[in-house]
Amino acid sequence: MAGTILSSLATAGSRVPENRLAPGLARPRHPDTVQRILRAAEENFAEHGLAGARIGAIARAARVNKALLYYYFTDKETLYGAVLDNAFSGMKTTVFQVLDSDLPPREKIMAYVGAYFDFIASNQIYPKLMQREMMRAREGHSEHIDRLVKTYFQPIYRRVGELLHKGIAEGEFRQVDPAHFVPSMVAMIVFYFSSAPVMQRIVRFNPLAPERIAERRAAVLDFISAALFQSRASVGPAVRQSGVRK
Amino acid sequence: MAGTILSSLATAGSRVPENRLAPGLARPRHPDTVQRILRAAEENFAEHGLAGARIGAIARAARVNKALLYYYFTDKETLYGAVLDNAFSGMKTTVFQVLDSDLPPREKIMAYVGAYFDFIASNQIYPKLMQREMMRAREGHSEHIDRLVKTYFQPIYRRVGELLHKGIAEGEFRQVDPAHFVPSMVAMIVFYFSSAPVMQRIVRFNPLAPERIAERRAAVLDFISAALFQSRASVGPAVRQSGVRK
Repeated sequence: MAGTILSSLATAGSRVPENRLAPGLARPRHPDTVQRILRAAEENFAEHGLAGARIGAIARAARVNKALLYYYFTDKETLYGAVLDNAFSGMKTTVFQVLDSDLPPREKIMAYVGAYFDFIASNQIYPKLMQREMMRAREGHSEHIDRLVKTYFQPIYRRVGELLHKGIAEGEFRQVDPAHFVPSMVAMIVFYFSSAPVMQRIVRFNPLAPERIAERRAAVLDFISAALFQSRASVGPAVRQSGVRK
Repeated sequence: MAGTILSSLATAGSRVPENRLAPGLARPRHPDTVQRILRAAEENFAEHGLAGARIGAIARAARVNKALLYYYFTDKETLYGAVLDNAFSGMKTTVFQVLDSDLPPREKIMAYVGAYFDFIASNQIYPKLMQREMMRAREGHSEHIDRLVKTYFQPIYRRVGELLHKGIAEGEFRQVDPAHFVPSMVAMIVFYFSSAPVMQRIVRFNPLAPERIAERRAAVLDFISAALFQSRASVGPAVRQSGVRK
């Protein structure tokens, strides 16, 4: 995890405008401190948004003084960008471990959905950050969204799309349109966590209790496999049993 | 539509605290004016949120003076509540027309999903309002969410759950868990519209163009029917052909 955070920091650093790149960020002398600042900032941004977040409160929560924080992150917007990069580079690393594997299409798409679900379930702050960023994007206020899309979302979207095309070509998947199927998979996972406060009032149980999250994971995998997999009966038995597909 | 708006206004009026109930709301003498105020407020709240919305701007957009607006709606929070009631009572009316019908389970669930999709597609302001309200609920700031849940979301959720149970009992639907299947259907529709500004950057087409919305509608119906419907082969042919099910 520390590796992910540091590599994402380097990435974030290389992408902020030259004049905003803080002197300490490129090769931090105290990576633990940077990590503490990022975690504190993540919490504070998720709770209060960019406008409401306070550098002083973040510094206190990270147990650093404000000067040191500014040594690493020039201003609040840069710190916010680093938090977003950190969040989504962790997600990219996690799902690419699966997408780069040699699993056959059915197993790979299930492993991808499972890995993505587990990442979001263990980092429930990300749907919140993303929800805020989506609202900023809609209002034209996000200076980060184009970078996030290009660096994280598009590469993942492309690779999952390729996986769907492969499975369709091999007769394993139904003829779905990846441009709609990929966002549907994301929706079923992200919306569950972002709508939990409302769902809790509707269903009268806590959707974020561990046993409910486990239920949800199973339901999502079941939903997607039922919607995507060609029933075994409709794949030619010769193909299925002779291993022609390899 | 005017009928829906007026009945929802009466409903909204009866639910706001006694001291906040504006004198003109119970039996408005100029329903057109009330409707104009609500439409202007809906736009303004969706764009700026509750904190950023301005009563003066809403009054100007509705071509009324502020005094008349306050005659109908005591304060900004009351007006915001009326906008939410108006939005979601329209949705409830629309989907209950389908849920109250005599259609068999497969046709009814498709008609429900189609009606819900069309309502959201024609009123794209509602996912925005809902997204904001979900964020307020998470932060404990929404005084409306419990009323919205009780009046609109819970009744719809229950009826769709009953429909799923009926379809499962009749062997038409797979053994899905309604507590997860219902929110998954909502997710695929609402998330598509609320994430459109980000999706547009990923896929490089406009997800809200009419032909893309039509594509999405077909994809959602296909996804849900594939995930939900028992394949005809696995339903006993005697049952299917003899009409035992009625």
